[in-house]
Amino acid sequence: MEGKTTSETKVVMSELVLPGMTNLLGNLLGGQLMHWMDVAGALCCMRHSNMQVVTVAVDALEFKHPARQGEMVRIEAKLMWIGQTSMKVKVIATAENLATGAVIITNVAKFTFVALDQNGQKTRVSALIPETDEEKQDYEKEEKEYLARRNNR
Amino acid sequence: MEGKTTSETKVVMSELVLPGMTNLLGNLLGGQLMHWMDVAGALCCMRHSNMQVVTVAVDALEFKHPARQGEMVRIEAKLMWIGQTSMKVKVIATAENLATGAVIITNVAKFTFVALDQNGQKTRVSALIPETDEEKQDYEKEEKEYLARRNNR
Amino acid sequence: MEGKTTSETKVVMSELVLPGMTNLLGNLLGGQLMHWMDVAGALCCMRHSNMQVVTVAVDALEFKHPARQGEMVRIEAKLMWIGQTSMKVKVIATAENLATGAVIITNVAKFTFVALDQNGQKTRVSALIPETDEEKQDYEKEEKEYLARRNNR
Amino acid sequence: MEGKTTSETKVVMSELVLPGMTNLLGNLLGGQLMHWMDVAGALCCMRHSNMQVVTVAVDALEFKHPARQGEMVRIEAKLMWIGQTSMKVKVIATAENLATGAVIITNVAKFTFVALDQNGQKTRVSALIPETDEEKQDYEKEEKEYLARRNNR
Amino acid sequence: MEGKTTSETKVVMSELVLPGMTNLLGNLLGGQLMHWMDVAGALCCMRHSNMQVVTVAVDALEFKHPARQGEMVRIEAKLMWIGQTSMKVKVIATAENLATGAVIITNVAKFTFVALDQNGQKTRVSALIPETDEEKQDYEKEEKEYLARRNNR
Amino acid sequence: MEGKTTSETKVVMSELVLPGMTNLLGNLLGGQLMHWMDVAGALCCMRHSNMQVVTVAVDALEFKHPARQGEMVRIEAKLMWIGQTSMKVKVIATAENLATGAVIITNVAKFTFVALDQNGQKTRVSALIPETDEEKQDYEKEEKEYLARRNNR
Repeated sequence: MEGKTTSETKVVMSELVLPGMTNLLGNLLGGQLMHWMDVAGALCCMRHSNMQVVTVAVDALEFKHPARQGEMVRIEAKLMWIGQTSMKVKVIATAENLATGAVIITNVAKFTFVALDQNGQKTRVSALIPETDEEKQDYEKEEKEYLARRNNR
Repeated sequence: MEGKTTSETKVVMSELVLPGMTNLLGNLLGGQLMHWMDVAGALCCMRHSNMQVVTVAVDALEFKHPARQGEMVRIEAKLMWIGQTSMKVKVIATAENLATGAVIITNVAKFTFVALDQNGQKTRVSALIPETDEEKQDYEKEEKEYLARRNNR
Repeated sequence: MEGKTTSETKVVMSELVLPGMTNLLGNLLGGQLMHWMDVAGALCCMRHSNMQVVTVAVDALEFKHPARQGEMVRIEAKLMWIGQTSMKVKVIATAENLATGAVIITNVAKFTFVALDQNGQKTRVSALIPETDEEKQDYEKEEKEYLARRNNR
Repeated sequence: MEGKTTSETKVVMSELVLPGMTNLLGNLLGGQLMHWMDVAGALCCMRHSNMQVVTVAVDALEFKHPARQGEMVRIEAKLMWIGQTSMKVKVIATAENLATGAVIITNVAKFTFVALDQNGQKTRVSALIPETDEEKQDYEKEEKEYLARRNNR
Repeated sequence: MEGKTTSETKVVMSELVLPGMTNLLGNLLGGQLMHWMDVAGALCCMRHSNMQVVTVAVDALEFKHPARQGEMVRIEAKLMWIGQTSMKVKVIATAENLATGAVIITNVAKFTFVALDQNGQKTRVSALIPETDEEKQDYEKEEKEYLARRNNR
Repeated sequence: MEGKTTSETKVVMSELVLPGMTNLLGNLLGGQLMHWMDVAGALCCMRHSNMQVVTVAVDALEFKHPARQGEMVRIEAKLMWIGQTSMKVKVIATAENLATGAVIITNVAKFTFVALDQNGQKTRVSALIPETDEEKQDYEKEEKEYLARRNNR
């Protein structure tokens, strides 16, 4: 089974925080942001697997800063690790103040997806080939955590 | 500082999974579900604090089963624990098959919110009074985890 | 044909009035509220009949007070009466001011739905069993009105 | 105080029933239709009063036929009668089958609005001048019903 | 092959610019307006052809003035010309200030659609019969432009 | 007045075509696509000018191929040329079939925006510095067209 590199399936999404997407404080709604992160992560996994995918988990999602109305939100999703049937994606969201150009990280999360075959069954996907040092470290860290979880069961 | 009981601020939300809310498999979009869970949790915390709140974290959100188009999603949000400035809410989502009445748990997650005062600063909120055994156990478990995290810093 | 009690199929829906749902006065859009009331009523009837339902009428819907941006709208839908093929639901909407906890009734309406079988034909549904005094009075009042309408034809 | 004719403020709205607006049967969602009817009625009253308006009641709204996905919904709203502070609008919705050109009436309802001044207080609006026979009959019928309601109080 | 007149398929759409449809300046979002113009144009062509249609081009769309939050946008779409397989529609959008009644033209554009048969293939549609002088001039102008383009190829 | 390069403000947007965004043929709605293209173009111009911007024109937008439900739409927006007060952006949309990885260009358009100062007046923006050969050719072509239009007036 051949593989794909991390960079081949990376997804970038840029959005403008419009008035209809905000809460009562003029901040981007958490649910709207989570929707964009979920879609960006799913796109990565669909590009990697060439199959339909479903979200199975979101790990420890933190909201470090709110994104404000009128800011540009940029979401970057990148595959970290692939297991028997699951694909783990790192999703990073930043907010850019368009009047100053200042950029802050607003959210970091790991989403896990599985690919489904024609009958809706979980199915194996091709291997992931990390290339940069950061990609390799992420991969190894996730692999260790996976093995630790498996041994604990 | 007086408190409020857990049941006083509990929130129930019922929704019908309509065609415009689904992904390519006919399942409820993860982002739509996360939006509902986030709003239900926020409502709990606004009722408790009588202030505006912001989401600061989502702990380990699992998608156990998809909710299907045409099913009723029911979300129940209940405060678990209150710290210096943060409020932790348990949010449980179930899907009811309307043709059979069968109900399954689709998601369980813990959301953390903080209340903001008029100047947008984090602020202390009134105490939480757990009443049932389950509420007391949840409270103690969260308290222990909080103390462990604080000692680790 | 067996029946279901009123309380078995009761539906509660809680929503936060977000900026994107308001009119030019900062009040919840009438159409958004009617959508929620319609869905809550339909959910009741789908739970009772275990079939698809369509709205056939809305009786005298009054807007007593507007729900304001930032308030919690809570919708409660409960079956009142069941005829040959139609199901009548009482839908009550309240608005809770989240800064004070004050609750007001904003709308009261009666929605009528019919259940459709697999071929899209109107079909009979199981009986409704009112239990509390209020439920019994509502049932009898609707039954009388139904008989009066039938005699007038 | 001068007046405006009925035809001066008439509103026509045409919409295409898209997949994202339908229920599980492929019919237009009741709430979406009620939203369009509410907006069309409000536009009539804003054009007549040159002020902000709020919906105060919907009289006996019937769903005679569903509008199907892919059909054109056409909504026509026309002022019928004006009281001390309230404006009554007739709103008629039709569905046009775009493959055959066949048109059916799907809904007829009367909406009541009041105009608000700068301080949010109910305010008097200019007179309505019915011109055609139908407009005059509608006006008189509503005037009689209004007088009957006033005498009953 | 018989034809239809221009006025038979004309479409009028009236909309209220709500807060959730605006950009950061309180103006109607360009994309929302283009969506309404596209749907109005498509409705014309579906009424003319009695078939499904797809947008193939938008000619030189100008935004002369913004439509402001709280204004009524009125869109008028009218067939101009019909070629071998394409239908050209003139779409005019105006904004009415509801406090003053003042109306300005905000956008003028020409949209081109083609009709698709059951197999998704482009298909010929019935002739267009312009009646007024303006309709005839528009038709001839488009015919000349079409012939010029064809000769250039 | 200093300038910014073309690549500094380039915007990439990736989206999944969900069922709720499609027309009756299962293709992405033209209005949804035009909204994304408009937002992507606006983001470029806001990043360049550090000001609010409004759309003033869309040049010859062609729909070469539809984007299908389930495909990934990728929009790339890049400044081409800057005049006295206007900014011209090239916006290219592609659709990627996620089952095969095949990518096609669906739309190409040029959007023109102007920046507004605090008083809502058109205002000059900093220069654009094209770097690659393609960027330089685009710039010169637009400059020539601009001069031709100016001489024609």
